[in-house]
Amino acid sequence: MVKVAVIGATGYTGQELLKLLLKRSDIEVTAVTSETSAGQHLGQTAPTLARDHHLILEKSDPKAISKRADVVFMCLPHGQAMSTAEIYLDKGLKVLDLSADFRLKDPAQYRQWYSLEHTAPGLLAKAVYGLPELYAPRIRTADLVAVPGCYPTSVILAMAPLLGLPGLDAQTLTVNSASGVSGAGRTLKDHLMFAQMEGDFYAYGAPTHRHTVEMEQELTHVAGREMKVSFIPHLLPVSRGIYTTITVGTSQAVDEESITETLKKFYLNSHFVHVVSGFPQMKWTLNTNHAYIGARVDKRTGLAIITSAIDNLVKGAAGQAMQCFNLMNDMDEAEGID
Amino acid sequence: MVKVAVIGATGYTGQELLKLLLKRSDIEVTAVTSETSAGQHLGQTAPTLARDHHLILEKSDPKAISKRADVVFMCLPHGQAMSTAEIYLDKGLKVLDLSADFRLKDPAQYRQWYSLEHTAPGLLAKAVYGLPELYAPRIRTADLVAVPGCYPTSVILAMAPLLGLPGLDAQTLTVNSASGVSGAGRTLKDHLMFAQMEGDFYAYGAPTHRHTVEMEQELTHVAGREMKVSFIPHLLPVSRGIYTTITVGTSQAVDEESITETLKKFYLNSHFVHVVSGFPQMKWTLNTNHAYIGARVDKRTGLAIITSAIDNLVKGAAGQAMQCFNLMNDMDEAEGID
Amino acid sequence: MVKVAVIGATGYTGQELLKLLLKRSDIEVTAVTSETSAGQHLGQTAPTLARDHHLILEKSDPKAISKRADVVFMCLPHGQAMSTAEIYLDKGLKVLDLSADFRLKDPAQYRQWYSLEHTAPGLLAKAVYGLPELYAPRIRTADLVAVPGCYPTSVILAMAPLLGLPGLDAQTLTVNSASGVSGAGRTLKDHLMFAQMEGDFYAYGAPTHRHTVEMEQELTHVAGREMKVSFIPHLLPVSRGIYTTITVGTSQAVDEESITETLKKFYLNSHFVHVVSGFPQMKWTLNTNHAYIGARVDKRTGLAIITSAIDNLVKGAAGQAMQCFNLMNDMDEAEGID
Amino acid sequence: MVKVAVIGATGYTGQELLKLLLKRSDIEVTAVTSETSAGQHLGQTAPTLARDHHLILEKSDPKAISKRADVVFMCLPHGQAMSTAEIYLDKGLKVLDLSADFRLKDPAQYRQWYSLEHTAPGLLAKAVYGLPELYAPRIRTADLVAVPGCYPTSVILAMAPLLGLPGLDAQTLTVNSASGVSGAGRTLKDHLMFAQMEGDFYAYGAPTHRHTVEMEQELTHVAGREMKVSFIPHLLPVSRGIYTTITVGTSQAVDEESITETLKKFYLNSHFVHVVSGFPQMKWTLNTNHAYIGARVDKRTGLAIITSAIDNLVKGAAGQAMQCFNLMNDMDEAEGID
Repeated sequence: MVKVAVIGATGYTGQELLKLLLKRSDIEVTAVTSETSAGQHLGQTAPTLARDHHLILEKSDPKAISKRADVVFMCLPHGQAMSTAEIYLDKGLKVLDLSADFRLKDPAQYRQWYSLEHTAPGLLAKAVYGLPELYAPRIRTADLVAVPGCYPTSVILAMAPLLGLPGLDAQTLTVNSASGVSGAGRTLKDHLMFAQMEGDFYAYGAPTHRHTVEMEQELTHVAGREMKVSFIPHLLPVSRGIYTTITVGTSQAVDEESITETLKKFYLNSHFVHVVSGFPQMKWTLNTNHAYIGARVDKRTGLAIITSAIDNLVKGAAGQAMQCFNLMNDMDEAEGID
Repeated sequence: MVKVAVIGATGYTGQELLKLLLKRSDIEVTAVTSETSAGQHLGQTAPTLARDHHLILEKSDPKAISKRADVVFMCLPHGQAMSTAEIYLDKGLKVLDLSADFRLKDPAQYRQWYSLEHTAPGLLAKAVYGLPELYAPRIRTADLVAVPGCYPTSVILAMAPLLGLPGLDAQTLTVNSASGVSGAGRTLKDHLMFAQMEGDFYAYGAPTHRHTVEMEQELTHVAGREMKVSFIPHLLPVSRGIYTTITVGTSQAVDEESITETLKKFYLNSHFVHVVSGFPQMKWTLNTNHAYIGARVDKRTGLAIITSAIDNLVKGAAGQAMQCFNLMNDMDEAEGID
Repeated sequence: MVKVAVIGATGYTGQELLKLLLKRSDIEVTAVTSETSAGQHLGQTAPTLARDHHLILEKSDPKAISKRADVVFMCLPHGQAMSTAEIYLDKGLKVLDLSADFRLKDPAQYRQWYSLEHTAPGLLAKAVYGLPELYAPRIRTADLVAVPGCYPTSVILAMAPLLGLPGLDAQTLTVNSASGVSGAGRTLKDHLMFAQMEGDFYAYGAPTHRHTVEMEQELTHVAGREMKVSFIPHLLPVSRGIYTTITVGTSQAVDEESITETLKKFYLNSHFVHVVSGFPQMKWTLNTNHAYIGARVDKRTGLAIITSAIDNLVKGAAGQAMQCFNLMNDMDEAEGID
Repeated sequence: MVKVAVIGATGYTGQELLKLLLKRSDIEVTAVTSETSAGQHLGQTAPTLARDHHLILEKSDPKAISKRADVVFMCLPHGQAMSTAEIYLDKGLKVLDLSADFRLKDPAQYRQWYSLEHTAPGLLAKAVYGLPELYAPRIRTADLVAVPGCYPTSVILAMAPLLGLPGLDAQTLTVNSASGVSGAGRTLKDHLMFAQMEGDFYAYGAPTHRHTVEMEQELTHVAGREMKVSFIPHLLPVSRGIYTTITVGTSQAVDEESITETLKKFYLNSHFVHVVSGFPQMKWTLNTNHAYIGARVDKRTGLAIITSAIDNLVKGAAGQAMQCFNLMNDMDEAEGID
């Protein structure tokens, strides 16, 4: 029985994670925290989660919680995990951070994109980027895992296998993504109200969305050459899901078949990533940890069009965290998320 | 009092058009046709339209209808208007075709993209492309207007003013568009059912969507050089609206301000096209004939991001047809669609 | 040119009202207020409204505003209009209050249902209940109009014509209504967020929803006998619209035809209320001031089922206010809302 | 390993059932049928289902299928199962019919409500109504189970425990239900298209909806006295979920507490039915086999308001079928559906 704590249990990510944790018989949730709802039963913020479990939300107290848990999941806005992760690590816990705090290797990048000085730069080298399809061996032995952002997951899964494909050697990707509104978090905002968002769709955040640098770091690492991303996120009138459409220049050697075959080969034994002919649909992924990828080539313009779909709260957050957790605990990668 | 006939009155475009026509006191609708619902009262297919009008759907009979109308709107799938338009024109009627039949100047292009031989190639030179923001003078005197496609409207309005901007001289545009499902028409299809489409989003049709060639023809015409478009449409889980995100390479001379100012200057006296700072929202346009355009530049990658929003059934179809109708009848461009 | 002020211009009701006011050439909006956004251009909270008008939001100052307006629309939460309406009335302005403050005739009822002491009980007798289909003559000469609640409008329109029908003499109605979320206002609340409300539907507020007493007051007044209502509102995952299903016991003399005919006769010359065979659809009313009513009788159980549909923000609020405004200014009832 | 066949595998119910069956390691799906898609891989109609399984759709051939299966699930429109069930039963298979064919005990009722002569009246006495919360012991030993309708499930679960409660002895219930559109099946119909249904809500089918008689039969059986139901279904703009609001007269002895306690006591050891204070939300049940029930009493009018929520495709169809299957095979009731 692995004892786990969830720091930040009432946001969308925390709740999705608890949905997965609470149905596991080999995991015991020993602490759930919320600064604003401390003292309340978990059921007051999440009726269906509370059915068979009697968890009381508490304020976060890393030292106290360290005594009760083996593993801690941190589901906080960026800027908060970096100040407490070390406490858990020092006490011998394993830490999975679902925020952006340990994703960037370079604290200068963190400062530039998040307008915040990183307070635990010493941990950055230690942190493993938690994308199991690329880094499973390192995740298995990690103490600190930086669970990837939702948009970067959708982009890196689609592009990482293709960066070495001859003819697809462009250094700049154009990424148009669309996300369900849960990606914006549970903080109350006028533009996230139902009556505002219903029937709407629009671009936002470009060209300064913070996930851009995360994509560039990982794609550059995989490609072995500097990669640039022009990232344009859009907001969809649905609660969950991410659909990403990447366009990139090609030489004539590249066609739909060579791209598809390269992807299929890469994901041949993957449990969660599936490659289709043509374009996948976002709905195929909802409430699952599965990702779908598909591509076409526009011969007339020489552009390859690579699309991917995930559930932003599962493969883009809580499910991917569980996948990492499974690896870190020598369990089957798909345990409890299949 | 102008007498008008609507050929194809029960599809989404036909019904949107009737909504606009039936509230005009200076227009009399003298014929509404439907091959499948002929004999029924219009109210059986459209309860709210039938409230104050007693129109009976009839089968299309161009010669009979020619005697009753001054202007005919053709709201049919492509391939049908080209066989009857000449009959109306010969009888002296003005024709507004909302299908693709008269949009392409070159019958070879029509054959290639629509897999159909054009049966009235002689009319193509006569047809005026009905985008009032570019061609108002010619529309005023036209007998045959090809009302633009919904996607091309969203792209051409955004790009036409920019094609001569120094530094924005790329010859290939990448166009990611998202459309509400009414754009797919009213024909019953499994993927258009509510239970299928709800919560979904996906790319389709690329790289062979038929609106691509229409965009290229018009942008090439405006630019005076060959323009290529890589067009990637997506389906949105909403009933109406189109949002288009265009990316195009720039030289350093171009920034957000120069693009925005160029657009603002072009649309300074435009009744229906509005330029904003940053990105517009699709919802601003719904149920109106207004279009919104806004741009940003990604200095890091040198890409300009130009976005536009319209209602596919209004500015992308019926409203634009009315705007043309007004011009053709020496009326205020905005009459009945403001 | 009638000069009007809108007190509370940034909520859903205020914005819907401005949409109607700003397109009128015979009305000048001379003041728009917002306590939280004072100083901002109206366009910052409502981009499409601001297109052709340059209105700056200001804090509410009844004395100053009285000098600039002939008519004032109050779009505030309940409890606020009652403290300032008298100031406007004393200065000779006409007041249309869209809140609940002047709807109940008995201040004791107001205290009981709204948990608040009425501070202007002297105005209650003076206030006219602004349902034009019942009270047009009184509205024409009124200085103070209490614009009805959205749910009560849907119920009273459906039942008022039937209360004298022999065989439909039950004194208790069961009312199941469903409303779009804009009915809950624009105040930020977790359960009104898109990611919460999407895909959901549920009953709330029963049996103590405040609109209950408003329905009972009006139905009792019309019937000339005490009427009771068991009112069960539900929240729909749409932004606007109300659909009401009323069940009431009948004697055998009553059938679908007699109910429908009674309704049709009552609304024979009504501009906005339409009676159909069977059940109407909510969508028919959206973005319009029209209401649809239809009924069936369950002969097996003796229950009559009467349904009605309106747009909660138009016929249920801003449109109805405009209808009253038109009557108060000797204009055509449908001016600007047809 | 239990071998099962799914007759009618491409409708919404069949697909939901396959989702549950295919993840079970103790079940082998040996046949999936479709009259219109026979010969196709299951993946062509359901991409996510086909990922790990290679099932080819075939035309239904009861004799051939009988040799390959131990249990057959029939997911067909009404009128079809009654002609083949006996073939399977004769061959020793157990049959779970998800249509209405074996739900009514009286063939005359079937004829009256379904306008069809029952062709296997001899099986009606043998069929067990598959509502495990009421009939688990009989389901365990049944060969033929009539899986309940979606609406009746939501009504019977809510009312069965209350029919003996003193003070709640009315013989007529008023039932207002709202259902997601998947309840209408996958047959292509104009009113079920996304562009039609989005933003809409309306009553339909009353007072002659076929589920009425099923509710009356079961409630009469439980109550031991004749029960009548006035049933008013509504269509919701969501893909799945049913929410039911029942109103019934009470005497003063009944209050919210007594109703809630009676329900809680009845469902104390229930795995899938949960009783809450006040009203539940439909979303709590989506994609699960769980049901929620909650009640309030309107003391002013003497009406009890009892609400229930289920997922129409799970507890209202496929999940309930699996629950019955588990009981029939001496497995844990919740196996594979928790």
